Amino acid sequence: MPLSINISRLQQDIEALAAIGRQADHGLYRMAFTDADMEGRDWFKQRLEDAGLEVYEDGAANIHGRLNWDDNIPAVITGSHLDTVPGAGHLDGALGVLVGLECLRCIKEQNLPLRHPMEVISFTDEEGRFGGMVGSQSIAGLLSPESIHQAVDLEGVTLVEAMQEHGYDAMHALHARYRPESIHAFLELHIEQGPILDQMGLSVGIVDAIAGLFKWEVSLIGTPNHAGTTPMHMRNDALQGLAEFAGQIQRVLEENGSARSVATIGKVELKPGAANVVPGRVDFSFEVRDTEERILGELQDAFRKALSAIARRRNLMFEFKVLSEIESVRCDLGLVQDLEETARQLKCEPLIMASGAAHDTQMMAKIARAAMVFVPSKAGRSHSVAEWTELVDIERGANVLLNGLYKLAGEQH
Amino acid sequence: MPLSINISRLQQDIEALAAIGRQADHGLYRMAFTDADMEGRDWFKQRLEDAGLEVYEDGAANIHGRLNWDDNIPAVITGSHLDTVPGAGHLDGALGVLVGLECLRCIKEQNLPLRHPMEVISFTDEEGRFGGMVGSQSIAGLLSPESIHQAVDLEGVTLVEAMQEHGYDAMHALHARYRPESIHAFLELHIEQGPILDQMGLSVGIVDAIAGLFKWEVSLIGTPNHAGTTPMHMRNDALQGLAEFAGQIQRVLEENGSARSVATIGKVELKPGAANVVPGRVDFSFEVRDTEERILGELQDAFRKALSAIARRRNLMFEFKVLSEIESVRCDLGLVQDLEETARQLKCEPLIMASGAAHDTQMMAKIARAAMVFVPSKAGRSHSVAEWTELVDIERGANVLLNGLYKLAGEQH
Repeated sequence: MPLSINISRLQQDIEALAAIGRQADHGLYRMAFTDADMEGRDWFKQRLEDAGLEVYEDGAANIHGRLNWDDNIPAVITGSHLDTVPGAGHLDGALGVLVGLECLRCIKEQNLPLRHPMEVISFTDEEGRFGGMVGSQSIAGLLSPESIHQAVDLEGVTLVEAMQEHGYDAMHALHARYRPESIHAFLELHIEQGPILDQMGLSVGIVDAIAGLFKWEVSLIGTPNHAGTTPMHMRNDALQGLAEFAGQIQRVLEENGSARSVATIGKVELKPGAANVVPGRVDFSFEVRDTEERILGELQDAFRKALSAIARRRNLMFEFKVLSEIESVRCDLGLVQDLEETARQLKCEPLIMASGAAHDTQMMAKIARAAMVFVPSKAGRSHSVAEWTELVDIERGANVLLNGLYKLAGEQH
Repeated sequence: MPLSINISRLQQDIEALAAIGRQADHGLYRMAFTDADMEGRDWFKQRLEDAGLEVYEDGAANIHGRLNWDDNIPAVITGSHLDTVPGAGHLDGALGVLVGLECLRCIKEQNLPLRHPMEVISFTDEEGRFGGMVGSQSIAGLLSPESIHQAVDLEGVTLVEAMQEHGYDAMHALHARYRPESIHAFLELHIEQGPILDQMGLSVGIVDAIAGLFKWEVSLIGTPNHAGTTPMHMRNDALQGLAEFAGQIQRVLEENGSARSVATIGKVELKPGAANVVPGRVDFSFEVRDTEERILGELQDAFRKALSAIARRRNLMFEFKVLSEIESVRCDLGLVQDLEETARQLKCEPLIMASGAAHDTQMMAKIARAAMVFVPSKAGRSHSVAEWTELVDIERGANVLLNGLYKLAGEQH
């Protein structure tokens, strides 16, 4: 007989939290260590207490709600983040924290026997006011005194200052580290933030990998010429080089990528950028994601070749700078299979899928077996007030998480 | 026995004028009615006087240097402009004025008999501080009290104010008009501002038409999506629409245009314009030029069809705004043939060609038979300090103009 969360109680929590930090444009503004974030944290600590869970705040200001805690037994952990981007919707991050709370609340109120201690964590600054994933990086032991001191927001406020304002010593984030042997497993529930589950009409996705990426800044440099006096065959038009490259993206992905590969030109700047001048230079961003390092490597080679052939043929100079490279993360295959089985037992056919967006799970996977449960995002919308997930899908996803967590932590496992 | 200009005297004039308005970046800044422009005007009036020509300044501040003037006999006129764009080279406009002066000087000092009065005109504000071609429009009778009052520069200074500062009443520009019957012919010498003569190794071009153009602002509107979570086949990527359109430009020109057709995307703006967001919208400029109105019309239709097919297939919305339409201008066929013959007599094989850039001749052609003589621009460079023409080419072009003008004005005609 599978366990069930209390959906009306969860709905009340979602709605109560969604009121904290809501502005006139209906968007949420709970960026890390803002007043709204502090109010959300206080509210969440109170909910943990009300649920009879042990509340613990670590050096990185991560909030832990603990059940049957024992430092000597590896814990089954779930969690996500309460902070938001500016103008956010009400589910990104928040849903995973509240569903985690609801799962522990259910297990506690039914007095279910536990072999492992459990906890739900609300991670600090996932969204990146101070660089992102500050809390989960702390727990995974990935911060250094230097990186803490250098963390700064867009207005120039440092992480040290922002935490100090609320009575925290940012350097204590170094003490938040968990040893790998202290974690039995980590699961995170999150909205998909993409359109796949919604378009397929599915309620639950089980994430088997989080995509890595490489991001380039590419320049193609030709000659700026008078658009009236320069015949077509005497031009070195940088935009034509970009256009040809953009037109080859699909071919290169099909030849060298996987079904999960995506590539995007999101930013373009033409120079000099006047209607009557043939563009002498174009600078553009190019970002490629896949869940396999080998495929990312092959795509790098293939895109570099394509760019360089276009530049050579069109007599353009070609420069590129690697802005970032983030490794893909594999989820634990055993956990993925367990969650898949759990979903099927709940009569909920899951999709095994990749996450194209970044999550705290990426950091936790460095020290623990980890996996994720996705619920649909209506039309793929996220980081906007258009963010929406049907309650029935939230309930199904939450029940997959609850039963998945209990299989890991409970006596029968 | 053909006539010859005095190239060393012309060279001295070119160098003397090139020193007026030169800034530290080596560029010229003689925008209309700036101090440098006024200094250039004074210098030019003095040169006209030194040459024994009658100096006349009309209501538009056009400077006329006249030889054998008679209000009752149609005049043979040449001219161009002394004003520059900011950061200009030393030849655009200035060369045509100085060669015109040299031609009249030669004819006068040799006491050659004239059937028609002659004049060289320095036209006011060709380059557009106040909209462009203010002087030639005045002479062609194309200004109105309203258009004079509305003319304003980028800093908000009006034409009325700028002219007043130097003692001119801008409204008097309305009196500068020439009656068509008062002009026998108009010829303008100008640098090509394009690469054709330079690449073909020719010294002289005879312009038989000045291209017209249409300029659009086009928007393709898709959906902004997360670049990591949105699979390739679920995207409505506006940039991909632009890339496909840019890739079709050459085909559409080949199918519907002439050898003179050019089309340029010079300005592109992506929205939201972030590396990790699939572009939901692109706004871009699109400019097409040709010397035939019929061809411009066909190109409009063909490009509109191409855009609309791409938008439909890619599920993008498509908007466009016509920013400007300028009619092409045909030069007088008889004048073109005369100049061609003159060039051949001077052992200088000319290229019959179009002008892709705008010139005062466009306005003068509305009231008079008109044609142009081009000399090469090194590498097509213009509106920059890189502007350069070999002295030998200047001499050949100037001699074509001199003999062409004298054939029109002299007794033998």
